[in-house]
Amino acid sequence: MAPKVPHFVTDFFVYETAKSVVVKSWSVGVINRFVQLLIILYFICWVFLHEKGHQQRDTGIESAVITKVKGLGSFNNHVMDVADYVVPSQGSSSFSIITNMVITDNQMQGRCPETDKKFNCTTDDDCNKNNSSNIGNGILTGTCLINNVTNVTNVTNSTNSTNSTNSTKSTGWCEIEGWCPAEDDSFSGTPMKEVENFTIFIKNSIRFPLFDVSRGNFPSSINQSYIQNCNFDPVHAPFCPIFKVGDILKKLNQSLDNITAYGGEIGININWKCNLDYDVENCNPKYFFTHLDSAFKHSKASKGYNFRFAKYYQSEDGTEYRTLHKAYAIRFEIIVSGNAGKFNVVPFLITLVAAFTSVGLATVFCDIILLNFHKGADEYKAKKFEEVSGIVQEAKGPCKGSQMSIKVLGKTSNDSGTFSIGRQE
Amino acid sequence: MAPKVPHFVTDFFVYETAKSVVVKSWSVGVINRFVQLLIILYFICWVFLHEKGHQQRDTGIESAVITKVKGLGSFNNHVMDVADYVVPSQGSSSFSIITNMVITDNQMQGRCPETDKKFNCTTDDDCNKNNSSNIGNGILTGTCLINNVTNVTNVTNSTNSTNSTNSTKSTGWCEIEGWCPAEDDSFSGTPMKEVENFTIFIKNSIRFPLFDVSRGNFPSSINQSYIQNCNFDPVHAPFCPIFKVGDILKKLNQSLDNITAYGGEIGININWKCNLDYDVENCNPKYFFTHLDSAFKHSKASKGYNFRFAKYYQSEDGTEYRTLHKAYAIRFEIIVSGNAGKFNVVPFLITLVAAFTSVGLATVFCDIILLNFHKGADEYKAKKFEEVSGIVQEAKGPCKGSQMSIKVLGKTSNDSGTFSIGRQE
Amino acid sequence: MAPKVPHFVTDFFVYETAKSVVVKSWSVGVINRFVQLLIILYFICWVFLHEKGHQQRDTGIESAVITKVKGLGSFNNHVMDVADYVVPSQGSSSFSIITNMVITDNQMQGRCPETDKKFNCTTDDDCNKNNSSNIGNGILTGTCLINNVTNVTNVTNSTNSTNSTNSTKSTGWCEIEGWCPAEDDSFSGTPMKEVENFTIFIKNSIRFPLFDVSRGNFPSSINQSYIQNCNFDPVHAPFCPIFKVGDILKKLNQSLDNITAYGGEIGININWKCNLDYDVENCNPKYFFTHLDSAFKHSKASKGYNFRFAKYYQSEDGTEYRTLHKAYAIRFEIIVSGNAGKFNVVPFLITLVAAFTSVGLATVFCDIILLNFHKGADEYKAKKFEEVSGIVQEAKGPCKGSQMSIKVLGKTSNDSGTFSIGRQE
Repeated sequence: MAPKVPHFVTDFFVYETAKSVVVKSWSVGVINRFVQLLIILYFICWVFLHEKGHQQRDTGIESAVITKVKGLGSFNNHVMDVADYVVPSQGSSSFSIITNMVITDNQMQGRCPETDKKFNCTTDDDCNKNNSSNIGNGILTGTCLINNVTNVTNVTNSTNSTNSTNSTKSTGWCEIEGWCPAEDDSFSGTPMKEVENFTIFIKNSIRFPLFDVSRGNFPSSINQSYIQNCNFDPVHAPFCPIFKVGDILKKLNQSLDNITAYGGEIGININWKCNLDYDVENCNPKYFFTHLDSAFKHSKASKGYNFRFAKYYQSEDGTEYRTLHKAYAIRFEIIVSGNAGKFNVVPFLITLVAAFTSVGLATVFCDIILLNFHKGADEYKAKKFEEVSGIVQEAKGPCKGSQMSIKVLGKTSNDSGTFSIGRQE
Repeated sequence: MAPKVPHFVTDFFVYETAKSVVVKSWSVGVINRFVQLLIILYFICWVFLHEKGHQQRDTGIESAVITKVKGLGSFNNHVMDVADYVVPSQGSSSFSIITNMVITDNQMQGRCPETDKKFNCTTDDDCNKNNSSNIGNGILTGTCLINNVTNVTNVTNSTNSTNSTNSTKSTGWCEIEGWCPAEDDSFSGTPMKEVENFTIFIKNSIRFPLFDVSRGNFPSSINQSYIQNCNFDPVHAPFCPIFKVGDILKKLNQSLDNITAYGGEIGININWKCNLDYDVENCNPKYFFTHLDSAFKHSKASKGYNFRFAKYYQSEDGTEYRTLHKAYAIRFEIIVSGNAGKFNVVPFLITLVAAFTSVGLATVFCDIILLNFHKGADEYKAKKFEEVSGIVQEAKGPCKGSQMSIKVLGKTSNDSGTFSIGRQE
Repeated sequence: MAPKVPHFVTDFFVYETAKSVVVKSWSVGVINRFVQLLIILYFICWVFLHEKGHQQRDTGIESAVITKVKGLGSFNNHVMDVADYVVPSQGSSSFSIITNMVITDNQMQGRCPETDKKFNCTTDDDCNKNNSSNIGNGILTGTCLINNVTNVTNVTNSTNSTNSTNSTKSTGWCEIEGWCPAEDDSFSGTPMKEVENFTIFIKNSIRFPLFDVSRGNFPSSINQSYIQNCNFDPVHAPFCPIFKVGDILKKLNQSLDNITAYGGEIGININWKCNLDYDVENCNPKYFFTHLDSAFKHSKASKGYNFRFAKYYQSEDGTEYRTLHKAYAIRFEIIVSGNAGKFNVVPFLITLVAAFTSVGLATVFCDIILLNFHKGADEYKAKKFEEVSGIVQEAKGPCKGSQMSIKVLGKTSNDSGTFSIGRQE
């Protein structure tokens, strides 16, 4: 016959499979198939269709945003254009539109009285205690200027103006050293309400590095004249990249008066969720708008948004002076998020295997019913479980009479196993 | 003998394992081992070696980027240095190099004619309809200036210049209120082509917070003189943090003429992929370059990149005037991404368990073959499946004669089971 | 009787479960339960309690940061306020506080000598070789200016100043064309050490889009007066959003002298880790501080942080001149990270199923012991494995005598199976 194959080779190429007990019971059979159906439905509907378990997912979206604001407003009898009210100017994903300003003209280094009520004083001592504080427009000199000098235009060395000891105890202001005159931010102009009609053009290009797919937030078919005339609308113009500030404020229920006077923060979220199994042309963003400071809406402190900047000038004699601006602005942040999925054989196989394995879990459920709550529970138990115990002494030789002992022991098999819960006999 | 152990204790410390059927068949045995081998190979090669399934992964890379541009160009007979052409100046991860500008000098608040052809007019009516639009350099006053007044230098109150009813119907321009004279962006200078020789120094430090590992994009061994003389090259100088703009443009097949004239957006991607099981010195970045606007390359609208900014001056009498710049620039965005992995016992165990479980799945495959397509399929079926049915009435007492009934029923066992597909007998 | 149900229907609603062998052995039983206990403990303690395996996790945290610096310093006999030393001014998450400057006043376009020693020359030839380099303050004209002209104030066309052939071979400087006079950065002022007392107010609002939860970094209950007086302290004032620069430097062991003189980069990390199963009020951030350039601490090159910017002026005759600033600054980057978890039935079920499946893995471990290292290993083997082989010829008809053949073959069953490792008999 054929040459003798070594024993360990035949042993190795042996196939081992679980021995099964088949229960012909309508009740358990129906339950079993029903549970299996539920599991299969769960995998098809949730894991495959909803969670896209067969797709490889790229969450490392790379994004670049360019913005351009257009519109003309007027503030303080000046016409304001983009170069005046957009900060920073270069059209990044985070920018501010200045809507209101407290302007302090012609500040020079020197000494002058403070403007805030916190720096009211009657004696020099009042002006020494707050020395270390960071509140205030300049470094306190420790002098209290009594003669209510509010409009110091020629801010020359004012150290000579000492506390005149007048008997009326009239309130004065502490003297500071720094940029003079000090800013008085209790006065502000009429906010630039034209911001309502301003438009923001957003050009967002993203890339999913895993799939090397690049997409833009408006299709190539859009031409310049459409862009110049359209306004974003989620229903009628979802691909128009022009957003009217007034529309955004309306969607957020934000009062124009309040935000133009005190500033605010608005988020423009661009969400990309792409299924690259379909045509890449279907990979388009969704826009929505948020109040970035909504977490602070009940907060008493730090309302609105403002910042200070200065324009520096130099007079003919070389003296530097500046115009300080406390600017109240609407700050826009373009927040891009998203992910993309594409069929890939590896996650598909893994999910498929998980699905098959999970279908087997119906058995666990049915075993609990069968072995505990079913009429013939004990019969099934006897059939499902074969018992081995105390046979070590009886049968020393390998594999002799083992089948016999099973039969004998089988009769007393009533182990309730892992799946029998809370049942005594 | 030993004290009696309660029954539920002995029942609890019982060990239950699946009963197996061993099939001594060469064909199925070889298939079984082959499928198992495939699964093991898959886990070793893909899951462990490629996907690093034994590692804990940190994807929350924290990054800080500082950039510094060097180079001298000339534009408009001026030598331009870093302070002139880099916006914003402080060396952030996103910056622009201005290569071309439309400069409108000495703008003051006042009235003057528009410059764009869209604002050509013959009567005042032509200038009223576009009132609400955001296109234009100022707020339309509704007046049409007929006498082709292109060079308005003394922009004083020009409200007196009414529509002179001349019979020639010569075209005029609508009058605006705002910064005058209005910008005429049809004229632009010679782009600063020296940008080709500019260098960008990138200092990128990253941190993987999970492992508390910090890395920089160039090794500590690099000294100042090397940095001043090297140029990044993926092969010859992969650790040199100096990037020549010309090299980047060449790699992107970007024409210098086009990008310097109209601007553009370029991404410098720094990708960190670190295996911290090896020496941390091997954790180094890879650089690559992308067109950020590649998604818009077929788009008709919004080519290039430009933004407007102004320099503000004040004359001796306190009048503010400004120089408006429409700047065409190359915008660079440094995009840092990456992740790090390190051996961790938890994911290692999880993956190992998954591997072992998956090896068992070979059984599913072999069962399908064995029970359906194998010569002795019916024999195996009879062996693998034991049937229980209709025994509830016959055997009421726990576990009596169960073995007998099996024998009887076993003879008719021809259940096709879960794994028997499409087979009739 | 009941109407006949088709055969394939009864076959379909059959329930199939694994046949088990129950081993009544104390040793293996205890090992089995112990391993199961370990697995259960692992799942409870690690997977559920530590890794929150029952929660859906949102890692796509959306964040907006607003900062405001307060404090007054003095540099160069000038009082510096926020508008002077914070760049950029609008309070973004990345900003710099200028602490030291090299100021070059009244630069105009023209020709003048270089200032750096690298541009020392004796003949014109010395000034031609470095032509292509990007080091230097202007474009080299190729002329060597011998007469140590260091203070060129009237930078008119200086082309007439040729190399006077003086015999002393005194060293000169190469002439450049550009902004003149050239910057001499070997001289710098006294750093603004008051930065130590400056405070940074951080307003960070985050959003977990998956759960639509918004949070701020300080509670609504905090009022304006508390914010104006508090200082962040991890123990005593963890909710105070005011950070003193000196405190941050102290925590980082950063010398004030060094960082104010040469600049530096500091990261303020805000970490949100929220368990939304508890009250959302418990979702609060943790702050910690890092040296962003710690990866470069052993590096010889590129210490500190500086950047150049210019203030532009225009004289009455329309000539543009500027003041160049080389600013050494402390750069702060607010880095926000975090994730949130919330109970969700899907991950809970998946983890639960994984736990149950894993408990079954104890069997694998115990089978190895039982079949290889246990006293009665062979008995168990005989009991666990039933063998089928060579029966194909003997029994052609479906399911005839199969039980008999098992009995016969069962006697020689000594397969070592998958789990028997390295054992001969």
